[in-house]
Amino acid sequence: MSEYLSIAVDAMGGDFGPRITVPACINLLKHHSFLQLQLAGDLAELESLLAHVPQSLRQRIHVHHTLSVVSMHDKPSHALRHRRDSSMFKAVELVQQGVAAACVSAGNTGALMALGCSLLGTLPGIDRPAIISAIPTQKGHCFLLDLGANVNCTAEQLLQFALMGSAMVSAVEDNPSPRIGLLNIGIEEIKGNDLVRQAARLIQAHSGLNYIGYVEGGEVFSDRADVIVCDGFTGNIALKSNEGLARLIAEKLRKSFTRNLYRRLLGLLAQPVLKELQQQIDPGRRNGASLLGLQGVVVKSHGGAGQSHFEAALNQAVTDACLNIPARITAQLQQQLSGSGD
Amino acid sequence: MSEYLSIAVDAMGGDFGPRITVPACINLLKHHSFLQLQLAGDLAELESLLAHVPQSLRQRIHVHHTLSVVSMHDKPSHALRHRRDSSMFKAVELVQQGVAAACVSAGNTGALMALGCSLLGTLPGIDRPAIISAIPTQKGHCFLLDLGANVNCTAEQLLQFALMGSAMVSAVEDNPSPRIGLLNIGIEEIKGNDLVRQAARLIQAHSGLNYIGYVEGGEVFSDRADVIVCDGFTGNIALKSNEGLARLIAEKLRKSFTRNLYRRLLGLLAQPVLKELQQQIDPGRRNGASLLGLQGVVVKSHGGAGQSHFEAALNQAVTDACLNIPARITAQLQQQLSGSGD
Repeated sequence: MSEYLSIAVDAMGGDFGPRITVPACINLLKHHSFLQLQLAGDLAELESLLAHVPQSLRQRIHVHHTLSVVSMHDKPSHALRHRRDSSMFKAVELVQQGVAAACVSAGNTGALMALGCSLLGTLPGIDRPAIISAIPTQKGHCFLLDLGANVNCTAEQLLQFALMGSAMVSAVEDNPSPRIGLLNIGIEEIKGNDLVRQAARLIQAHSGLNYIGYVEGGEVFSDRADVIVCDGFTGNIALKSNEGLARLIAEKLRKSFTRNLYRRLLGLLAQPVLKELQQQIDPGRRNGASLLGLQGVVVKSHGGAGQSHFEAALNQAVTDACLNIPARITAQLQQQLSGSGD
Repeated sequence: MSEYLSIAVDAMGGDFGPRITVPACINLLKHHSFLQLQLAGDLAELESLLAHVPQSLRQRIHVHHTLSVVSMHDKPSHALRHRRDSSMFKAVELVQQGVAAACVSAGNTGALMALGCSLLGTLPGIDRPAIISAIPTQKGHCFLLDLGANVNCTAEQLLQFALMGSAMVSAVEDNPSPRIGLLNIGIEEIKGNDLVRQAARLIQAHSGLNYIGYVEGGEVFSDRADVIVCDGFTGNIALKSNEGLARLIAEKLRKSFTRNLYRRLLGLLAQPVLKELQQQIDPGRRNGASLLGLQGVVVKSHGGAGQSHFEAALNQAVTDACLNIPARITAQLQQQLSGSGD
């Protein structure tokens, strides 16, 4: 067996495809000498982009020729049945076959979920995977899930998200008892819809979880919880609208600092501060959301990610694979299930 | 009849009660000589805060003594039955009785909704009111509803929100054909949950509406739509998390500009720019969300609003009352219903 860690990449996925994914892959290889990449995509297109890559890097890139691409409009069921020759299918299949330790795609989220479930299967006790990602907070970051994998959730699924999130954070951050919050429209017990109230009862009753109660939208960034659980519809809207607001603020800052000559000068002087802020709040910096709950590491990149952001997603896959997150979650889940309050 | 425009105020509502509401009221009166305020609350407490107010202002303030306060933990049904002697009840009742042209409360949203529905009633064709507020965008602002009045919505309700939002914007902004978007986790037709897809069909089929399709969370701030419709759970979480992010960014900016002496100096120079930005993105600046769909003007302030933000909510009530928004919506609804594509 190779001593390299191997990551599979859906090179055709996302708004920009190989133009973005290939340079990001090349850059990643420059930084990690222990890595090998399995690129799934159109052979001719990928080879032309790889033509001038130095041999030392090129030999760590394997191209798997695929014939089709899952489109953003494909239904998950369609992708499953009719896109078995796609770059996304191949990337996930390489994980299933043990050729790669993780895979990354910037393509259709629903299709990636469906392929992950079908090819890799879910962990014992988990109905459906959830998408988890770190978001910045006042003191550091917290994890939010689900971010869009499940638009209709049951209370039992929200409990499973809580268990997976807790397991992941305790494994990755060496935090034995992550604080679990449930996203709601108020912190009072009577607030929210039936789903949230029922989930609160289940999570509260689970002795393996450090449940701190409801977390309001306004508290997401205030370090109240280490893991915040919500259904995928709400989580997706919240995350994306936050990204939109961050872009709006960045844009307004840029405009404010270019209105006249004096302000331009000021903006020049303030550049390091503004750049620092941009990095702290740039949601793309944390691009790369893990599909938690699968028997394998699958990382979703933003569809609109540029090169550096796609590289961040690749790095997320490297981290998840190095830490073997699925195995750690399984171990934690078993421990939590055996220690359950039921 | 008095020539003054009269606004009723739940002086006891919100996290800070009369300490905040009374100074905000006094300030409002200073700015608007045509205004009269009806303060509902504890007589002794209000009188003590009004003791040193100049007679010229004091004579435009009427105090209505009430015995109780709706708490943030009261269920709406409880408030309806057992808080008929509360400041919130009184404020809404003053609108019902025609004593005031609008009312404002920073108290329990669910209770305010319930009292509004019960005392004022909904407009013809409207099942439940929705909370609407303006949010900043790249070029100006757009309106988002519902922001938390309805945690469980039907597709028909989302259609009603679209109709009300469209009517309000066309009335207030002199925009004959406001662009209506439906908040969803993707712009492709297959995206979203059953509720959203069903609502899309209803809104699309309505010839009185300028429906532009799904709007993603990330597009909320990008001027794609004039009115964005969503259920109250999603809207509340999105709005509040955006407010939380805006606070986080403001806090990080402040810290960045105070790290060392050089940066402090830079921060001092950049103060006007930062202040301008703060005002542009401060969600509190637009504090004051209208409960659209009631037969009367009811404005909800943030519970945690400070004096200037509560004053913004009062101003919102003044605007809605001056424009007689409920009557305009009714007229628009009738026109839209008669021009419906059904």
